[in-house]
Amino acid sequence: MVDLLIRKASVLQLRDERAEVLAEHDLAVKGNRIESITPNGTIDPSRARTVIEAESQLAMPGFINTHAHVPMVLWRGLAEDVNIASWFNDYIWKLEANLAPEDVYWGMQLGLLEMIEAGVTAVADHYWHMDYAARAVEKAGTRALLGQAMFSANGMGQIEETAAFVRRWDGGANGRIRAIMAPHAPYTCDDDFLRASARTAERIGSGIHIHVAETRAQTQASLQKRGQTPIEVALDCGIFAVPTILAHVKGATPGDLEILADLEAPVGIAHCPKTYAKLATGLNNLVEVRALGIAVGLGSDGAVSNNTLDLWEAMRLTALGQKQLTGDAANLTIPQALTIATNESARVYGQQDELGNLAAGKLADIILVDLSGTHHLPLNSVTASLVYNTRASDVRTVICDGRVIMREREHLTLDKDEIYANIAPRMERLRRREGADNIQTYNP
Amino acid sequence: MVDLLIRKASVLQLRDERAEVLAEHDLAVKGNRIESITPNGTIDPSRARTVIEAESQLAMPGFINTHAHVPMVLWRGLAEDVNIASWFNDYIWKLEANLAPEDVYWGMQLGLLEMIEAGVTAVADHYWHMDYAARAVEKAGTRALLGQAMFSANGMGQIEETAAFVRRWDGGANGRIRAIMAPHAPYTCDDDFLRASARTAERIGSGIHIHVAETRAQTQASLQKRGQTPIEVALDCGIFAVPTILAHVKGATPGDLEILADLEAPVGIAHCPKTYAKLATGLNNLVEVRALGIAVGLGSDGAVSNNTLDLWEAMRLTALGQKQLTGDAANLTIPQALTIATNESARVYGQQDELGNLAAGKLADIILVDLSGTHHLPLNSVTASLVYNTRASDVRTVICDGRVIMREREHLTLDKDEIYANIAPRMERLRRREGADNIQTYNP
Repeated sequence: MVDLLIRKASVLQLRDERAEVLAEHDLAVKGNRIESITPNGTIDPSRARTVIEAESQLAMPGFINTHAHVPMVLWRGLAEDVNIASWFNDYIWKLEANLAPEDVYWGMQLGLLEMIEAGVTAVADHYWHMDYAARAVEKAGTRALLGQAMFSANGMGQIEETAAFVRRWDGGANGRIRAIMAPHAPYTCDDDFLRASARTAERIGSGIHIHVAETRAQTQASLQKRGQTPIEVALDCGIFAVPTILAHVKGATPGDLEILADLEAPVGIAHCPKTYAKLATGLNNLVEVRALGIAVGLGSDGAVSNNTLDLWEAMRLTALGQKQLTGDAANLTIPQALTIATNESARVYGQQDELGNLAAGKLADIILVDLSGTHHLPLNSVTASLVYNTRASDVRTVICDGRVIMREREHLTLDKDEIYANIAPRMERLRRREGADNIQTYNP
Repeated sequence: MVDLLIRKASVLQLRDERAEVLAEHDLAVKGNRIESITPNGTIDPSRARTVIEAESQLAMPGFINTHAHVPMVLWRGLAEDVNIASWFNDYIWKLEANLAPEDVYWGMQLGLLEMIEAGVTAVADHYWHMDYAARAVEKAGTRALLGQAMFSANGMGQIEETAAFVRRWDGGANGRIRAIMAPHAPYTCDDDFLRASARTAERIGSGIHIHVAETRAQTQASLQKRGQTPIEVALDCGIFAVPTILAHVKGATPGDLEILADLEAPVGIAHCPKTYAKLATGLNNLVEVRALGIAVGLGSDGAVSNNTLDLWEAMRLTALGQKQLTGDAANLTIPQALTIATNESARVYGQQDELGNLAAGKLADIILVDLSGTHHLPLNSVTASLVYNTRASDVRTVICDGRVIMREREHLTLDKDEIYANIAPRMERLRRREGADNIQTYNP
């Protein structure tokens, strides 16, 4: 017996940046892993506990969001058409002064609901009150790598609290939840704090998720203030001794990229192109980054800059943005965009052996995408349609860790009405910016 | 009696680049025009022939696509990851050698189907066999401004044929169809041909839809070959004596923009940002263009570069692209993006007094958009959600010229199955590139 049989799907396969689509294949799932992928008809449907008929649908790995602040969905649309300093100082860090632990529980659920609807099955989330976020992930049935954000201004005590959080949740929910240390950034964490975070991560066998060199201006400011780039600061503080997710890294110098390329511990860059355009904070050259062997994953960032958690859009903007930036339409090809969205995001997320590919033995995080909509027709190229035509609304069914969590767009784990009923009464308080003491000041 | 009553909708209003949303209003439509917009409850539903309950939906003007080659949807996904010269010479102008008149009839219907689903009610289309396109528009119930594309290599005879086409169709389908002269570009039409096109347009009271200064490289090539920019060539040939839609104009010099700003006849630029990024052909500064009083409209361009006809995406990329280009997130604000998508696209399209605004007396081209999806929640800002969160799939109902043409996503004019059944058997021939004589060579 198998637990789940997906029949007659097209199956996206990516190897060495080449994309292939297997027509009319069956995927069998046993427990939380893919058991086999075989031509349609090989497996008798009566041998499966659950059967999903997926004709005219495409099976691909669930998206992995390598950098987000999911509960910020609560504030989407409230910080518009402003530059980054104002965005932080006049909006975000005032709004976040109002954040209560239960807000994170419900905000996280709302964001997970949106991500499930868009086919995102895993998220590296960097935020506050992460026990509450973890409980939301447990309930949603998705996968997450959770980091409790830290500013050094809030004291060294946070490091042990965060280490305790990591021990509490790492490996939780059948391994769906992993936990990580999450110092905010070199401009909000002093060197002693970064050093202590790195030492603790090493001691407890965890990694680090941090914002570094977000913009060229940050790198310039760091060079002026202390003669080192943010990447050099992070290196000196021992951050790169452990597996690291680096958010943004658009201000890296050529020397910084060499540092990253030479590291022994895995390092990956989370790329969030919609935020970069929306906040006008520049763009990095991923062709150069990837040529050095540095992994790039897709990220949404928070929904107050994005303003969604849609990785179809992030994939599309990654391809479009690099073509535009480099002035060469042959750059960031369709197979490369799909590789970044799948294998390579899994590498940044730290589970490249288990996620990001549909193959026997891998964890069963699978989404089924309907390519019969008018906007795909005629379907001359499945892979082109995935990168340039597919909308989040084309995702029909979502499976995470072997469990069907959305079927034909019906949620099987989270309850939208319950979530929204719990969020609506919070919004009057949460929208307030007056009188709040900012939780931090942006002055990198 | 009124013919149509839309009840309890939010109604988007744009005036002088300010956006306002009227809550719970009723829109009454009589014939093909908006009769009134009043607070909910003012009009007795029993006085209306058709009633649409639109609670939690937003009413806004249908999108106007100011530059497209709609039947090219037939080839979407077939010319990927290539630069513009190869895109034209190795793909498009080989593929188009296979184009038959009936292909245009069915391809146009497929593209109109996609646009209706995305809330696009009007299109300025520039293509071949346009009598067939016009018949598709008649059937679809949408609005179009149709131009029969011309290369001078195909002879002067085209000009009279096109003039006859304009006379045949301009004002057709209850005024839904208008027609325009459409010389392809200064690099594919010699000066005599452009001059004759302009004179004919003036004589028959028509306008001109043309590609001009698509890239900086085209402007440089024109300056080297003949000492004039493409805009100067067009001016000298009399093109700007009539109302003109200029596609792209990313290669305009400051002097070119002054020429355009000083014209007496209306001129507008069709902006197609997804094509620009995808083909890596650069981006123009719309902040400067608009500061000169030159109107900018949204365009999809053809689906072999786009790869869709989705103007939600075009609006979003317009805002994101300008913020990124100018390095200032305060540029191209939400109200400006919505203004470009509505009022200003109507101006480029040449019907600014009748389209692009919901108000009594205007033509009733109205779309109803559902903002209750998870990706909009909490709905802190309707206007931010329209620009940054809305997907084509959020469009529920589409009204054009007072007639409901899609209701709750059900098509009332076109038949998807019939269209696709007619397209599928054509595709083997249409995909062929081997052996075809290119219809043109890209060598600007």
